[in-house]
Amino acid sequence: MTAAPKNDAAKNDTAPSLDALRTTLDGRWADVRQDVRSRMGSFRPASPDLSTEDYRARVLELVRELARTGRPHTGFAEEYGGKGDVGGVVVAFQALGYGDLSLLVKAGVQWGLFGGAVQVLGTSRHHDEYLRRIMDGELLGCFAMTETGHGSDVQHLRTTATYDPATREFVIDTPEPGARKDYIGNAARDGRMAVVFAQLVTGGTSHGVHAFLTPIRDDAGAPMPGIDIGDCGHKAGLNGVDNGRLTFDHVRVPREALLNRFADVAEDGTYSSSIDNENRRFFTMLGTLVRGRISVAGGAGSAAQKALAIAIRYGERRRQFSDPATGEEVVVLDYRAHQRKLLPALATTYALQFAQDDLVSQMHRLQSPGAGPVDEAAQRDLENRAAGLKAVGTWHATATIQTCREACGGAGYLSENLIPQLKADTDVFTTFEGDNTVLLQLVGKGIIADYGKRVGALGPLGTVRFAGAQVLGSVVERTGVNKLPSRLPGRGFAPRDRAQQRRLITDRAEHLLAGVARRLRPALKKGADQFGIFNAAQDHMLAAARAHVDALVLESFVDAIDRVADPAVKALLDTVCDLHALAVIERDRAWFLEHGRLTAAESRAVTGAVNDLCAELRPHARLLVDAFGIPEGWLACPILEDRAPTEADSEPVPSLVG
Amino acid sequence: MTAAPKNDAAKNDTAPSLDALRTTLDGRWADVRQDVRSRMGSFRPASPDLSTEDYRARVLELVRELARTGRPHTGFAEEYGGKGDVGGVVVAFQALGYGDLSLLVKAGVQWGLFGGAVQVLGTSRHHDEYLRRIMDGELLGCFAMTETGHGSDVQHLRTTATYDPATREFVIDTPEPGARKDYIGNAARDGRMAVVFAQLVTGGTSHGVHAFLTPIRDDAGAPMPGIDIGDCGHKAGLNGVDNGRLTFDHVRVPREALLNRFADVAEDGTYSSSIDNENRRFFTMLGTLVRGRISVAGGAGSAAQKALAIAIRYGERRRQFSDPATGEEVVVLDYRAHQRKLLPALATTYALQFAQDDLVSQMHRLQSPGAGPVDEAAQRDLENRAAGLKAVGTWHATATIQTCREACGGAGYLSENLIPQLKADTDVFTTFEGDNTVLLQLVGKGIIADYGKRVGALGPLGTVRFAGAQVLGSVVERTGVNKLPSRLPGRGFAPRDRAQQRRLITDRAEHLLAGVARRLRPALKKGADQFGIFNAAQDHMLAAARAHVDALVLESFVDAIDRVADPAVKALLDTVCDLHALAVIERDRAWFLEHGRLTAAESRAVTGAVNDLCAELRPHARLLVDAFGIPEGWLACPILEDRAPTEADSEPVPSLVG
Repeated sequence: MTAAPKNDAAKNDTAPSLDALRTTLDGRWADVRQDVRSRMGSFRPASPDLSTEDYRARVLELVRELARTGRPHTGFAEEYGGKGDVGGVVVAFQALGYGDLSLLVKAGVQWGLFGGAVQVLGTSRHHDEYLRRIMDGELLGCFAMTETGHGSDVQHLRTTATYDPATREFVIDTPEPGARKDYIGNAARDGRMAVVFAQLVTGGTSHGVHAFLTPIRDDAGAPMPGIDIGDCGHKAGLNGVDNGRLTFDHVRVPREALLNRFADVAEDGTYSSSIDNENRRFFTMLGTLVRGRISVAGGAGSAAQKALAIAIRYGERRRQFSDPATGEEVVVLDYRAHQRKLLPALATTYALQFAQDDLVSQMHRLQSPGAGPVDEAAQRDLENRAAGLKAVGTWHATATIQTCREACGGAGYLSENLIPQLKADTDVFTTFEGDNTVLLQLVGKGIIADYGKRVGALGPLGTVRFAGAQVLGSVVERTGVNKLPSRLPGRGFAPRDRAQQRRLITDRAEHLLAGVARRLRPALKKGADQFGIFNAAQDHMLAAARAHVDALVLESFVDAIDRVADPAVKALLDTVCDLHALAVIERDRAWFLEHGRLTAAESRAVTGAVNDLCAELRPHARLLVDAFGIPEGWLACPILEDRAPTEADSEPVPSLVG
Repeated sequence: MTAAPKNDAAKNDTAPSLDALRTTLDGRWADVRQDVRSRMGSFRPASPDLSTEDYRARVLELVRELARTGRPHTGFAEEYGGKGDVGGVVVAFQALGYGDLSLLVKAGVQWGLFGGAVQVLGTSRHHDEYLRRIMDGELLGCFAMTETGHGSDVQHLRTTATYDPATREFVIDTPEPGARKDYIGNAARDGRMAVVFAQLVTGGTSHGVHAFLTPIRDDAGAPMPGIDIGDCGHKAGLNGVDNGRLTFDHVRVPREALLNRFADVAEDGTYSSSIDNENRRFFTMLGTLVRGRISVAGGAGSAAQKALAIAIRYGERRRQFSDPATGEEVVVLDYRAHQRKLLPALATTYALQFAQDDLVSQMHRLQSPGAGPVDEAAQRDLENRAAGLKAVGTWHATATIQTCREACGGAGYLSENLIPQLKADTDVFTTFEGDNTVLLQLVGKGIIADYGKRVGALGPLGTVRFAGAQVLGSVVERTGVNKLPSRLPGRGFAPRDRAQQRRLITDRAEHLLAGVARRLRPALKKGADQFGIFNAAQDHMLAAARAHVDALVLESFVDAIDRVADPAVKALLDTVCDLHALAVIERDRAWFLEHGRLTAAESRAVTGAVNDLCAELRPHARLLVDAFGIPEGWLACPILEDRAPTEADSEPVPSLVG
């Protein structure tokens, strides 16, 4: 184990300028980020002592103010006054994540989920009538998918929409308490309409889940007849968002309420769809809604960045315990344990930011107006990446914000220092817009299906080779002693060799995938205990999915560095990427050891390298968080103030200012 | 990898009765636990929508009500109307942790920290005048130690108490903004006095930190002259506790305000102490306050138990996705991934409960009235265990409650389902009453000092043998290839062999300790870069401390099982202990692989055994959480109700009821 280098003796002798680093991070939609920063930078967090009702009222005001900036419009089609900038609007959403997350989520519900569903599932009859008012924030709406009894398994929602040809109406009904729509944003207070997901039944036949644009309140705000609206009440966070519950008692809506881009019901009740297979139709519809998931991943990234900015700036000011040699108290970020808490998390936050940017670009390419017909394989890949990045990114945010809270000690527990709100608001990110475990399972299923095709496509010879590689791995595992020379990375292991890092991380993903595919194969046999086989391999499948996402994220980081021209930025990002990659390997080094990919000495060298990299990046920590470009107004809190704290700091933080 | 056994085919064929298991868990102070359950079981959680001021008022009422039960008195000396039941009062505190944690913490401040300091640092002049009123909750007080600038390093507090022989008074002063007393419970609203920790200066000489009983408000509640009282305002949680800030401007208190059990100042200003060494004196004083740390560990345990009770009961009701064979929706706790989230955490919660009971008994033995003079070694051991268990237990609680929140999905984010409050309230446990990282460092220093003595005491031959074992380990590590037969556990590895589990966990602790001791040795050389050497080994030291605590906890669990007579309880606890021990080994299996303690196959067998144990304990999960004996009233929430949820569930939870 080598001694840590002195903090001031970093390898990156020429630190990049803040501007150069920020420009790199801002990337393709730099102008959008800059616009949001300057427009919204004057917003202040709500007082933590606002009552739920007052907080909801304030956030509604902010939503209206946001609408007036014209920013939400940019994501909609040009013919309705938008700009068709699908990627830009997601980037703008992410930038909002530096501020009040209730605003972020309420805006996401209004324009992303509700407006987005109307746009992508509806047709011109819906667009003409509603889009403009939705964009302007005049018509507030809900996305009523989740039910009390069905959150993850939305294909089996129980709400029904039964077509009545006599009146040419759908009858929307909640047949049992578990079919109540639950956790619905904008429902408890402000929403006037809802996109209601329900099993479409016509002529006695069910055609699966479809979406219906349904008025839930009249202009005066009273619930429409037959609709019972409940309030989810106080939540752990996001209390500026009015989540509620909707129960329908045979509520009639006109035939035209069906958002009929993918399927329609004729006046006589005849069902038709451009997609014959019910399963495929459902997932096609869901797929168009991928933007919500991508936006949550972005919002989680902003929240993690903000927490790190606070903890690192505080860690550079806070001193505790003396250096015996000098008698001076040591800045806490100079302690290895403190660096270990914050700097690998910072490196991974960079990695996720680049992966997020790639994801947004991919979405923009596929979903922009004029992108042409949907390429199914590309769309599936997008959905898979979105699911994986949402899961990994939101878990990373939750863990990182927790670490930052603890790294700020008691000060991190005071609302005035902003971390409590961040922590409370983002906590639900790991389970909404898809429960993370379920999302990783989705990724797992996706990559197993692809793997099946890949192995098939190799032909007999390729399959044998592939199997050969597997066998080698299996031997190492079964003998239980790492007698075989480690296939990867071999004799000359250098932890900071990027090629070796990539091989390790990619190889792990491949090996886990092949293994789980092998374990699931027996489920294909007739009469097999499918659930038992799947369940016994569930942890394996989740590990494979996680490893797959790790590999994608690292590739995004590597690609981003390749694109950088500024040598100082490139050198710094290279070091950050080393720390990220080695932290990923270190976290799962048991796997690499168990599978003969790392020897004991190599594994310990990884840990040593992580320590060294923490010390090396320590002097750049402030620059790295400043480059996120979080408006100072959104970071204003007593523990970051230059003056000594005064009693005025105990006053409630000023309320929202437009 | 073996297939998971069917859930209904558990090895524990004869499940123990709930009563028998609960009796075992309740242990020595079963009557105290039962008393708190029955007295406090009717308290209801505060509405999450109470304003901070109203919530503080409610919790104050509850503190007064608690005082009327006579329960807090039991921890104080008999001559002042107490019962001297030092252990019982900590157990009672822990049982309060199932209810409102603001009440728990405010009670802890009042009777544990403030009352405790008066009792153990004061003498009869303080006891006669104040103890009765403190016990009765008539005199509310603060424990004013932490300063804005010094939280962990309390030996270097900056507040001064300078003796003025002319008036026979101490002058208490806050010389700089960083010396402000901060985060002080009971300070912002209710406290009338504070035990103020300050550097005692007399005759121009400083004698280190001492405690002064200082009035901070008059009877009408106005701050005393020269004292500025601030409010920490809203916090992430525990908003029923009024944390505040105290700034002293040359505040005069009589000479008798000094809590003078360990040191005194004569009228003429002469300083005297029974403990000559200033450092030792300070740590002796601090050591008497260990009860607070033990209480926090207990409260964290209760909170983790409550979160698990909710998540496991919900996990047995919630269904999602269908079993393809039956078409029936699967109970989520039947999924391996869900079991993996909750059941190892449950097993470790059991382990920590037994370790906590041992710690409380040890404290009771040492600190009960009539325990005789302080045995320094025993006291140091107690402090070390308390520090370690507080750190490990509160981190476990934070992680477990987070896991339970996610395991309940969106429902876990609603305040009505209780987990949000648990999560928010307990979050500060990891950094108050000692920052966990600093506490583990303390444990590390303690075990290194003991190790030095042990190795010395072995004599030359013993040292050589000891070193031999180390060398063997080092060879394995340095060669980097696990060529050597693994010293432990050797050929016949059986994951569920308790002796092998204990050897693995103890051996890891010993090896890490020896390693870090070796790395720190050069710091003893003259002119060595002490900080650099310490800092480079900091992560190693923290790992050694953590491993040491893991070993202690497992030994407590093993001892507890040994004491059980009921064979069905014994068998079930044996299985729970297997899961705990193997989960500990699995979490750090990279270490065991790197150090030749486990082969790759053995390491994978550990993971397989954890999976099998999860399936085996699945049918007993409900019994295991029911045995905590949490009053049903404290678990009442919509997701656990048998009836289908109704709109009434959206109403705010009823307020506190006495």
